Amino acid sequence: MTLSIGVIGTGAIGKEHMHRLAVTLKGARVVAASDVSIEQAETAIRDVGIEARAYASGEEVIQAEDVDAVVVTSWGPTHEQFVLAAITAGKPVFCEKPLATTAEGCMRIVEAEVAAGRPLVQVGFMRRFDAAYRQLKALLDSDGIGRPLLAKCAHRNAQANFSGDMGLIDSCVHEFDVMRWLLDDDYVSAQVIQPVASSLVSGDLQDPSLVILRTRKGRVITIESFLNCQYGYDIRCEVVGERGVADLPQPTSVPVRRNAQASEPVMTHWKDRFIDAFNVEFQEWIDATAQGKRQGPTAWDGLVAAVTSDACVKARHSGQIEPIKLPERPAFYNN
Amino acid sequence: MTLSIGVIGTGAIGKEHMHRLAVTLKGARVVAASDVSIEQAETAIRDVGIEARAYASGEEVIQAEDVDAVVVTSWGPTHEQFVLAAITAGKPVFCEKPLATTAEGCMRIVEAEVAAGRPLVQVGFMRRFDAAYRQLKALLDSDGIGRPLLAKCAHRNAQANFSGDMGLIDSCVHEFDVMRWLLDDDYVSAQVIQPVASSLVSGDLQDPSLVILRTRKGRVITIESFLNCQYGYDIRCEVVGERGVADLPQPTSVPVRRNAQASEPVMTHWKDRFIDAFNVEFQEWIDATAQGKRQGPTAWDGLVAAVTSDACVKARHSGQIEPIKLPERPAFYNN
Amino acid sequence: MTLSIGVIGTGAIGKEHMHRLAVTLKGARVVAASDVSIEQAETAIRDVGIEARAYASGEEVIQAEDVDAVVVTSWGPTHEQFVLAAITAGKPVFCEKPLATTAEGCMRIVEAEVAAGRPLVQVGFMRRFDAAYRQLKALLDSDGIGRPLLAKCAHRNAQANFSGDMGLIDSCVHEFDVMRWLLDDDYVSAQVIQPVASSLVSGDLQDPSLVILRTRKGRVITIESFLNCQYGYDIRCEVVGERGVADLPQPTSVPVRRNAQASEPVMTHWKDRFIDAFNVEFQEWIDATAQGKRQGPTAWDGLVAAVTSDACVKARHSGQIEPIKLPERPAFYNN
Amino acid sequence: MTLSIGVIGTGAIGKEHMHRLAVTLKGARVVAASDVSIEQAETAIRDVGIEARAYASGEEVIQAEDVDAVVVTSWGPTHEQFVLAAITAGKPVFCEKPLATTAEGCMRIVEAEVAAGRPLVQVGFMRRFDAAYRQLKALLDSDGIGRPLLAKCAHRNAQANFSGDMGLIDSCVHEFDVMRWLLDDDYVSAQVIQPVASSLVSGDLQDPSLVILRTRKGRVITIESFLNCQYGYDIRCEVVGERGVADLPQPTSVPVRRNAQASEPVMTHWKDRFIDAFNVEFQEWIDATAQGKRQGPTAWDGLVAAVTSDACVKARHSGQIEPIKLPERPAFYNN
Repeated sequence: MTLSIGVIGTGAIGKEHMHRLAVTLKGARVVAASDVSIEQAETAIRDVGIEARAYASGEEVIQAEDVDAVVVTSWGPTHEQFVLAAITAGKPVFCEKPLATTAEGCMRIVEAEVAAGRPLVQVGFMRRFDAAYRQLKALLDSDGIGRPLLAKCAHRNAQANFSGDMGLIDSCVHEFDVMRWLLDDDYVSAQVIQPVASSLVSGDLQDPSLVILRTRKGRVITIESFLNCQYGYDIRCEVVGERGVADLPQPTSVPVRRNAQASEPVMTHWKDRFIDAFNVEFQEWIDATAQGKRQGPTAWDGLVAAVTSDACVKARHSGQIEPIKLPERPAFYNN
Repeated sequence: MTLSIGVIGTGAIGKEHMHRLAVTLKGARVVAASDVSIEQAETAIRDVGIEARAYASGEEVIQAEDVDAVVVTSWGPTHEQFVLAAITAGKPVFCEKPLATTAEGCMRIVEAEVAAGRPLVQVGFMRRFDAAYRQLKALLDSDGIGRPLLAKCAHRNAQANFSGDMGLIDSCVHEFDVMRWLLDDDYVSAQVIQPVASSLVSGDLQDPSLVILRTRKGRVITIESFLNCQYGYDIRCEVVGERGVADLPQPTSVPVRRNAQASEPVMTHWKDRFIDAFNVEFQEWIDATAQGKRQGPTAWDGLVAAVTSDACVKARHSGQIEPIKLPERPAFYNN
Repeated sequence: MTLSIGVIGTGAIGKEHMHRLAVTLKGARVVAASDVSIEQAETAIRDVGIEARAYASGEEVIQAEDVDAVVVTSWGPTHEQFVLAAITAGKPVFCEKPLATTAEGCMRIVEAEVAAGRPLVQVGFMRRFDAAYRQLKALLDSDGIGRPLLAKCAHRNAQANFSGDMGLIDSCVHEFDVMRWLLDDDYVSAQVIQPVASSLVSGDLQDPSLVILRTRKGRVITIESFLNCQYGYDIRCEVVGERGVADLPQPTSVPVRRNAQASEPVMTHWKDRFIDAFNVEFQEWIDATAQGKRQGPTAWDGLVAAVTSDACVKARHSGQIEPIKLPERPAFYNN
Repeated sequence: MTLSIGVIGTGAIGKEHMHRLAVTLKGARVVAASDVSIEQAETAIRDVGIEARAYASGEEVIQAEDVDAVVVTSWGPTHEQFVLAAITAGKPVFCEKPLATTAEGCMRIVEAEVAAGRPLVQVGFMRRFDAAYRQLKALLDSDGIGRPLLAKCAHRNAQANFSGDMGLIDSCVHEFDVMRWLLDDDYVSAQVIQPVASSLVSGDLQDPSLVILRTRKGRVITIESFLNCQYGYDIRCEVVGERGVADLPQPTSVPVRRNAQASEPVMTHWKDRFIDAFNVEFQEWIDATAQGKRQGPTAWDGLVAAVTSDACVKARHSGQIEPIKLPERPAFYNN
C-alpha cells in the first residue's frame, strides 16, 4: 500500500520533505500541497518534480479525498489549526515543531486527539530517529553505565540570526524532547544562566546560555545553547551514570594530517547532521501510518516541550529556578 | 517505473538481497527466483514474505518475460553461465563477486558484453558504495593530501574458516577493486609475504598475510589480510600523499568510560560494517538500471580483480614479485 | 647552590615529597624533618633513605640553622601555625593545601606575609604545573579560541571516603584555583546543585554535585564533582570561547583493540595523573627559592580558595546563589 | 656521588647534552669538553654557562683525571676512535649513534669491550627510553595482544636534506634498534621497496621508502621512511598480535574546534617528540654509571644496527631480499 500524503506549507522545509516523501523514501506519494497562495504550491510541486494537486488552503488539502495523511510544514502560528482540522477529519498528521506556539494550543490538540480516541498526531522531533542518539539510548537501556545521574548537552550553531528568547527556545526544544526520551524521565524545574555574551553576536541576543533542568527522578541536565559559536554545528551529550560515562557518538569524517595539524572537518549545518534522522523519521512514520499505528513523538510530547520552553523563558527573565508543571497525563498517552 | 527483478540463487546472501530489493529499497520488486531446486526457491520466497514466482533454473528466470533485470547470487562457479545468459538475453545483470572463478571466464563475459554493445553487467564490489570510502575518495580527488604515493590497508576478520589460497583471495579481492577505484590506477605487480602464522588458526591456512601491490603510477599498496585476528571485523586504509596523510573513517559508536577503561565496541561481522554500502549499491543499481544506465563496477573490473588474484596466488607460492598483466582494455570500458 | 629543606609532617604525602626533594629532583636536600613525635620523623627519614635530622616539633625545624626553606605537609589544622612561624623566621615555605582551614587563618597568613614585605609562601596547587593545563592555558593566552565565555569541568574519583561538605570542597578546591589561573579571572558567586545521589555511595555524602561559579568577567564555570564515579580518576575541562572550543589534553596510553573492544586504560589514582605536576611544582619552587624568587600560587591564592570553598558550602546548604566576597587584594600580590 | 663527565664534540647536540647533564639532570656535572679546536670547546662551555675545562682533543678529555665518564657527540666518523680510547682507559662511554660508521668498526668496539671484561659502552638509541614505547612494550610483555606477528612503523620527518642512502639509514636506524628491543627478536632479512618519489623532494633522494624486515621468530616488520612528508614529525608503530592490535601512544595536545575543523597540532621537530626520552636516557645512564652498572643499548646493539643498515642499503640497490647475517653474539652481551 502506498500512503497518499498532502503537504501543507511548501517553503524550504516543506519542499525538502515533499522530495523526501516522493523521491527518497518508500511507500508514500505526495498527492496534494497548499501554501499561502495556490501559485506558491504549484511552483513547489513543479520544483520538486512530482505530480500532485495544488490547493489554496490547508483545510482543502486535509479534506481532499485522495489524501490519506497530512504533513504540516507551514508557518508555526498556523500549525494548531491544521493539526486540529486533521484530527477532526480523522486523518493522521505529522506536524513539524512547534506543535503549537503556546502550551494552551498544544493542550487543545491533546484534548482533541484524546477525544478522537485514536493516535493521529506525530511531532517533528527528529533526534529520536538519529542513529547516534539511538545508540546512546540502547547503551543506557542496557544498563551500560548504571543509573544515569547527570547529563550535559551542548547545542551549537555556527551562526543564527535570532533575537530575544526565540533562539534559546528554538534550539533547546530539541534537547527538551530528546532528553526526556533518552532518560525516560520528566522535568520538574528549569533555570537559565547567562554568561557574558559573545561579542560576535549582534542585536539583543544573549548568547550563549546555560539551561539547567531537574527531572522527576532527580537528575540534573545542563544544556549549553550557543547559537553563534562560529566554528560549526556541533551537538554533544554526555551522560554520567553510577558506574560510568557515555557520550553521544559524533559524525565520522576523514582524519587528515597536513600542515602540522591532525584534523577532521566539523559540520556547519544542521541539515547535514540530521539528514539521515529526517529520512528515518519519515520512513517510520509512513510505515507506521500505513499500518494504522503511531510510534514517534506525540501531541503530549509537543505539549511538554511547550511547557518546558515557557518555564525556560520565565526562568531566563527571573533568574530564578522556575517549576515546570504539567497537567495530568491522559492515560491515552501511556505506552 | 518499478524494476522487476529475478534473483538466481536464494541462499543466505540471496535472501538478504531479495529482502533488500523488495522491502528496504525503492523502485524495485522481486518477481522471480530460482535455486538448485524449485522447492528451495519457493521456501526463500515464503521466508522473505513476498509474492514472486519460483523457477527451477536460472535460465528460466532470465527468460521470464516479466523480469527486467537479474541478480546473480548463486554458487560462485555458476556465475559465469548466468551472466553470459543474461547478456545474451539483453538483460541487465548484477553479479555478486566473483564475476567468474577464472580470469578466462571473466574475459568471456567482457567479450560478450562488448559484443552486445551496451553496458549490462555490474559486479558486487560494495565498498565503492561505502560512505567512508567515498569520503576518502572525495578528499583525495580534491587534492586534500597531494599526490598519493603509498597506501596501507588492513582487512581483518574475527574468525574465518578458510583454507589454502582462498582466504587470502576472497578477502583481498575487495581491496584489489576498491584501491584501483580509490587511486584511479592499475596494478603491475604483486608480492605476498607470509609472517609466522597465528597459532590460533587451524588447518593449513597461513594467516596473516601481507600483500604488496605496485601500480602503473608507481604507488605501492600494502594489504594486511588477517582472517582470524580474533578481536573483530576491522577495515583500515591509510593513504600517504605528498603533502599529508588520510585515513579511512571508522564506524562510530558510543564512547564509554567504565571499569578503568575508555572504550568503544569493534564490529565483529562484515554485514554490520557494510550494510549501508549494500543498500546504496543496490539502490544506485536499481535507479541506474531503470534509466538504462550503469555506473558501478563493470565486468572489466571483475576481470582485473581475477587477474590480480591469480598473480597473488602465484606470488604467494613463488615468494617472488609477480607481474600483473592485463589484456588491453576495450574502449567500451573507458569512462 | 643546594637548597636545604626542612619537612614538617612525615605522613604518606610528606614522605613522598621528602623522596621527591631528596632523590628525584635537583638542587635540594632534606636536612630536617618533624612529626607529631620525633620517632615518627626518624622512621620517615630512615624509610626514605636519607640523612637528615629529626625534630620533635615543626617550630624546631623552622628554627634549625641549616634549614633554608620549609615544606609543610602536616595535618591541615596545623598548617597555619607553621606557615606563620616560617614567615616570622623569614624562611620560604611551601604549604600543601589547605593553606589554613579557615578563610580567617588564610587572611592572617596574607597579612603576615605582606608585613614581612617579601614573598615567602607558596601553596600546593599542583595543577598549575601540569603539562596539560599549561598547554590549555597557552592556547587560551594566544587567543586560540577567542575570549572564553564558559568552562565546564569534571573532577571524578573512582572512590572516596568523604562525608558532608568535605568531599566536595577537597576535590573542587583544585578547580577553584586552577580555573582562576587558567582564565585570569576571579569569582563573584557560587551555586551548588545536587542531583540524585549515586546509590553506590554510603553514608551521608551527596555525590555527585554540580558547582556553578560566576566570574568577575561574567564567565560561567560548571564543575561536576563526582567522588565515587567508580570507573576511574578523570579530570576534564572544556573551555568555550567566542570562536572555538578547547579541551584539556588527556593522558596518553596504548590504544588496544581486542575482544571486540577498542580501548585505552583510564587512570584510577590521582597520584598517577599528577605525578609529573608534583615534580615540576617542586623543581620550580626549588629553583625559584634558591634565587630568592617566588612564582607559584601565593598565600592570596590560598585565601581565595578558602573564601570560594566557604561560599560553596553555604550555597550547598542554602540552595541559593551565594556571593563570593574577597577582601581587597594587597598590591603586594599584583604580578 | 656526582658523576664527572667529559664531553667530546660540542656542536649543537653536544651543547644540548652538556646543558642536559649539567643543568637539567641530577647526579652529574660536566668537567671537561673538547672539539676540533679548543676555542670551540671554550665557546661551548661559555654558552652553556658552566665551569669546565676545555681540551684540544677527545683523547685528552678521556685521559683527564677528574673525568669519570665520557659522552661522545662528535662527528660520526670519529666515534669509533673515541669509544675505543675510552674502553682502553676503562671509562664508561655514552656514544651518540652511530657507534661507528661501519659494521667492522662496531665489531672492533664489541671486541674491545669484551676484552675489557666489563660493560662500558652505551649507544644513544633514545627511543628505548621514550614513555610511549615503554608503555607499548609493557603491554606486549604482559601478553596484552597475544604473540606479535606483524608490526608496521612509520617514520616521517617534515623536511630533511638528505641524499642517497643516508636518509633512509639515518632515520630507520632508530626503528632497527627499537623494534628488536620491543619484540625481543633479531632480524634475518631486509627488503627495500621504492614507491614513486615525492615530487617535493629535490636531489637524488628517493623518498618515501618502504623497508621490510623479517625476524628470527618469523615476524614481519614494515617501516615507512618518509623524510619529506611535509606535514610534520610523526612516529607510528602498530603491532598486530594473535589476539589484538596495539598502537604506539601519540603525544597529547589541546584538541581544538574552530573554523569548521576539529584539530590537534602535529609536532614538526624530532627534538620536541623525544626531549623527555633524552632526559630519561641520560638520567638512567648517569644513575647506572654511578653505580657501576649499564642498562641501555650496548655496543652489540650498535653493531646490529650497523649490519641491518648495510643490508638495507644493499637491498635498496639490488631490489632483492637480502640476508642479515650477524656474527655470533658474545655471551658477554646476554642479559
